[in-house]
Amino acid sequence: MVNNVQRVDDTWRTCTKSDSSGTSSGGESSKESSRASTPVLAAYRTERLRDKMRRRTESGDHWFSLEFFPPRTASGAVNLVSRFDRMGSGGPLFIDVTWHPAGDPGSDKETSSMMIASTAVNYCGLESVLHLTCCNQTKEKITGYLSKAKHLGLKNIMALRGDPVGADWEEEEGGFNYATDLVKHIRCEFDDYFDICVAGYPTGHPEAEGYDEDLRHLKEKVDAGADFIITQLFFRADTFLKFVRDCRAIGITCPILPGIFPIQGYQSLRQLVKLSKLEVPEEIMRVIEPIKDNDAAIRNYGIEQTVGMCRVLLESGEVPGLHFYTLNREVATIEVLRQLGLWIEDPRRPLPWAVSAHPKRKVEDVRPIFWASRPKSYIYRTQDWDDFPNGRWGNSSSPAFGELNDYYLFYLKSKSSKDALLKMWGEELTSEQSVYEVFTSYIKAQPNCAGHKVMCLPWNDEPLAPETNLMMDELDKVNRRGVLTINSQPTINGKPSDDPIVGWGPPGGYVFQKAYLEFFTSSENVTVLLKVLKKYEPRVNYHIVNVHGQNTTNAHDMQPNAVTWGIFPGREIVQPTVVDPVSFMYWKDEAFALWIEQWAKLYEDESPSRMIIKYIHDNYFLVNLVDNDFPLDNCLWQVIDDMFELLDNPPEEQPTEQPVEQPAEESPVEDQPPK
Amino acid sequence: MVNNVQRVDDTWRTCTKSDSSGTSSGGESSKESSRASTPVLAAYRTERLRDKMRRRTESGDHWFSLEFFPPRTASGAVNLVSRFDRMGSGGPLFIDVTWHPAGDPGSDKETSSMMIASTAVNYCGLESVLHLTCCNQTKEKITGYLSKAKHLGLKNIMALRGDPVGADWEEEEGGFNYATDLVKHIRCEFDDYFDICVAGYPTGHPEAEGYDEDLRHLKEKVDAGADFIITQLFFRADTFLKFVRDCRAIGITCPILPGIFPIQGYQSLRQLVKLSKLEVPEEIMRVIEPIKDNDAAIRNYGIEQTVGMCRVLLESGEVPGLHFYTLNREVATIEVLRQLGLWIEDPRRPLPWAVSAHPKRKVEDVRPIFWASRPKSYIYRTQDWDDFPNGRWGNSSSPAFGELNDYYLFYLKSKSSKDALLKMWGEELTSEQSVYEVFTSYIKAQPNCAGHKVMCLPWNDEPLAPETNLMMDELDKVNRRGVLTINSQPTINGKPSDDPIVGWGPPGGYVFQKAYLEFFTSSENVTVLLKVLKKYEPRVNYHIVNVHGQNTTNAHDMQPNAVTWGIFPGREIVQPTVVDPVSFMYWKDEAFALWIEQWAKLYEDESPSRMIIKYIHDNYFLVNLVDNDFPLDNCLWQVIDDMFELLDNPPEEQPTEQPVEQPAEESPVEDQPPK
Repeated sequence: MVNNVQRVDDTWRTCTKSDSSGTSSGGESSKESSRASTPVLAAYRTERLRDKMRRRTESGDHWFSLEFFPPRTASGAVNLVSRFDRMGSGGPLFIDVTWHPAGDPGSDKETSSMMIASTAVNYCGLESVLHLTCCNQTKEKITGYLSKAKHLGLKNIMALRGDPVGADWEEEEGGFNYATDLVKHIRCEFDDYFDICVAGYPTGHPEAEGYDEDLRHLKEKVDAGADFIITQLFFRADTFLKFVRDCRAIGITCPILPGIFPIQGYQSLRQLVKLSKLEVPEEIMRVIEPIKDNDAAIRNYGIEQTVGMCRVLLESGEVPGLHFYTLNREVATIEVLRQLGLWIEDPRRPLPWAVSAHPKRKVEDVRPIFWASRPKSYIYRTQDWDDFPNGRWGNSSSPAFGELNDYYLFYLKSKSSKDALLKMWGEELTSEQSVYEVFTSYIKAQPNCAGHKVMCLPWNDEPLAPETNLMMDELDKVNRRGVLTINSQPTINGKPSDDPIVGWGPPGGYVFQKAYLEFFTSSENVTVLLKVLKKYEPRVNYHIVNVHGQNTTNAHDMQPNAVTWGIFPGREIVQPTVVDPVSFMYWKDEAFALWIEQWAKLYEDESPSRMIIKYIHDNYFLVNLVDNDFPLDNCLWQVIDDMFELLDNPPEEQPTEQPVEQPAEESPVEDQPPK
Repeated sequence: MVNNVQRVDDTWRTCTKSDSSGTSSGGESSKESSRASTPVLAAYRTERLRDKMRRRTESGDHWFSLEFFPPRTASGAVNLVSRFDRMGSGGPLFIDVTWHPAGDPGSDKETSSMMIASTAVNYCGLESVLHLTCCNQTKEKITGYLSKAKHLGLKNIMALRGDPVGADWEEEEGGFNYATDLVKHIRCEFDDYFDICVAGYPTGHPEAEGYDEDLRHLKEKVDAGADFIITQLFFRADTFLKFVRDCRAIGITCPILPGIFPIQGYQSLRQLVKLSKLEVPEEIMRVIEPIKDNDAAIRNYGIEQTVGMCRVLLESGEVPGLHFYTLNREVATIEVLRQLGLWIEDPRRPLPWAVSAHPKRKVEDVRPIFWASRPKSYIYRTQDWDDFPNGRWGNSSSPAFGELNDYYLFYLKSKSSKDALLKMWGEELTSEQSVYEVFTSYIKAQPNCAGHKVMCLPWNDEPLAPETNLMMDELDKVNRRGVLTINSQPTINGKPSDDPIVGWGPPGGYVFQKAYLEFFTSSENVTVLLKVLKKYEPRVNYHIVNVHGQNTTNAHDMQPNAVTWGIFPGREIVQPTVVDPVSFMYWKDEAFALWIEQWAKLYEDESPSRMIIKYIHDNYFLVNLVDNDFPLDNCLWQVIDDMFELLDNPPEEQPTEQPVEQPAEESPVEDQPPK
């Protein structure tokens, strides 16, 4: 049940576009270069936004970016993060998050601009630009915001003046009066750390004395250190193209990205026009007015109008990429991008899991498989690790996983309400069997006995991944009998790296997997399973642990077992997923806690339903199995079948013989589940 | 032409013997353990000799060890090092090197005990014990020897008194009078760094007052800190077994290894008996006297007698391993070991190349492929690297390769004399074609036109490796036309790790290779080759360089390309061989220099033969090719075929077009080879 969000990374794609017949002369000098710090394309991965832009501009590879505003409520934040995941999969070069001085934008609140941008970078792996306005702010306050942003891993700032508060605003001596002051301040205090974006106004800033004066201000902002420009929205391609020509004429050479606003509704258009003091052209109003009450019609028109305008822009040769004002919606923008051919339908994943965009984590290239369905929890719990030497855990350090309170974290909250969860997981549980049925319904994506589709489980917030679907029949069969699977992957023996289901990494490579299966099951099952596993030595590695940490394994030297790896042209081996015995003990705590925190607590204290979940939590074991023999057919289903077979047909009792499996035998099930 | 010496490493074999169904309880505590420092069995690899002994004793896995003495001449040293390589392949637990105070044993001379032991450890990858005698030595001198040994990577000392010089020797107050004093001194000055071995005398030390007093001395040596005992030779199993019983009776509990002396000749037996003051038993003399002039008969008798005695010893259950006095010969000892079943006929290689036994290098697990046939040169040139973090090159450091003077190193000298080399490589060369024929004769292992078999080349001191033999026809074909191959490996797509030809690593795994081809060829060929290679983008990676460092490559980001890797049960991926662009520039210097140092200098200054080699050195390019598509058939031969095809049928000249391959075109061949 690996539910990785598919993510495009600029890295591989653009790399393949670069000329590969180039020549480097002067071999002697190359002796001095230091060695690669990680096997995976370190140079590209650590590239900063302005360099990515330049590289793609030079190669003629058009890009797009997406603007969002911070939501007002916590549940709005949860939804926006899901949207980041979905829209991130289409391959934006970056996203940006607006800054609303009235909304406590620099705070730690889950809805602040700062935290939303940080979440996009750290948890969604998106290159992000944080807006920042300076009007009426002290230097200390601004420096504080910037320091915080840097600490959180943000690398890009959109420097804005912001709207003055009140009508009686006046220039302040030595203060932040214009965005130029902010740009200068950033460069002065943080040198070249941030990439800086500034705003351009194709029809002139509403407060500027005129178009030409406004252009001069823009030139000042760029001269002060801005790296690129995003423009205010406009309705005609010509407006933007004239603006670019005028900018170039006065010596502005940096990238200028057109701000694209797909009209999505009559009200939002009116509101925006009012705020931005723009005029909607006659030809657009003529179309919209008659259909102003028909949302679908307006959206369709908006899409059509935007696509037409973007085509003109892209064909002009003046536009390297398009910047979309999404208004936090996705349908219209995605449709425009699809029609323009910029939306990546089948994103190439650089690694099987989404790479974080935090500068410190960009070189990370191995993770334990256990968090495959909970990558945000893994990132959260390892966020304090000092570094990832060679992109992997260090050898001398023993980094501690963060505290297990992540299920309180707003962006790890289930997207479903308590009511919805009760409908999916059962208003009332009558036995362990009821729990098995919830798992089975989830696997089959079918309604449970009360008629509700089970769309998630505490360990899986999304439906089954496509590659897991391949094993649906086997998963269904074993879950029915109380082998409660929470993570699995099939055997892969050298599929092309561009395989639509299991592929990842650069083109021309091959990906591999060892079969993996992770499940909860009763101690009775474990006792029998251990007997069966003897037959599968050393082909199958296992770890079997209960909530108390009682651990049985045949992985003696506590080394990680690589279960996903890839071989690529001209590179070292990449092994992004491992079964790591050390981190399994941390995962165990989290996996068991989810029974209580997400499931048991849905029910009243002391209620039978809650007691059933608590019984499972207290008595079941968490098991993981790896089939090391990846060129052969996955044997893990046979292992489970053998266990069922032995359970159904136990051998004659031989009371004089001591059982071999001490640990399992030593934890007899004393208490019985409530009736 | 990978000519890796096959080497058994204790690591994998014994590991597979350990019980793999064990149980580790108390998962909580495992959280504190630090992570693995290298993917490959770090714990076993860094195990010290006494722990290896204990582990194998406990598992009932008999071992053997081999004693050598330092040779008198430099050519004797070269031969002994070859013998180390051959006898090391049979799997000794350790070898030891005797100490001869009269022979300047601690010096840097190539024949000193110190340097021979250091060579065994560092270049042959053998766990080694250095003898050290203390009689008539100052503490400073002894500490100096021990410090030097430690610095060279030696971890084990055999502490001996040594023979007093002169008959009038007297005990010296506070000096080294007995081996016990040396053991105490080592423990006092070097704590637990060294494993210490001491000598036992099954029939009593010749100078001791009696057998019992001698046993008491042995007890003192062990109590002072010795880890194990090797005995003087003996001729009857009973002698040794009684000795062990007597040792155990007075509380000596450490391992006691019997010193085994296969009788190899009448003279050597007489000499040894005289030196050691031993009596040869009646029943042996009775057999030997009549055949004393028949060396073969005596050796056969010695083998038979030794095998019989060793069988009794091993079956007694008192003998964990056998220590052989080889007298620097190999036939008799190997035959005895074969008959006992202790010689490893088909050694399992832990990695495709021989792992060094230097403590610092034990974790090394990746090397550039270029030195595959010259591993000693690679070790020499990287000996000053501070460490191999995570078993591979560090990311921040830029370790410099050692100076290119290694072909002066005695143990890198060709085993062949100048005369023999001239016979193989040609008394007189008449053209580049003569050189091509030398390469072809080497490939085919056939006599050259003068009737001499070509057994080595400057880049390959041994005949072709078995896996290279698989490609003999293709190699023959291309060398005939001036593609002078010096290193190659075939494609391997998942062969079992115990494959007799290409296997390495622990059992149950799979090994892989990308096809590799490295050769010298003319600049005319390179110009055409570059055209051909465009068709093979990005499947084939190439580096093409001449002696001046003019370098053409399609490996842009200067990352290593893994060309050999293995997947094993319960482990991370191991990738022991890479094509590394940085180190290739160092290898290039060495590869070109070998033309001059080993070949050109065989001929008179200004002689046509010398000028031909010099011409090749100055004008040819060194090329390496990797076929990244390992699941398909090796395409590198097709690349070369295409090059020949294009050379034979050049397209019509288009004089207006500029040639695309600048670097090759920029080095036109001005000077012609001498006629």
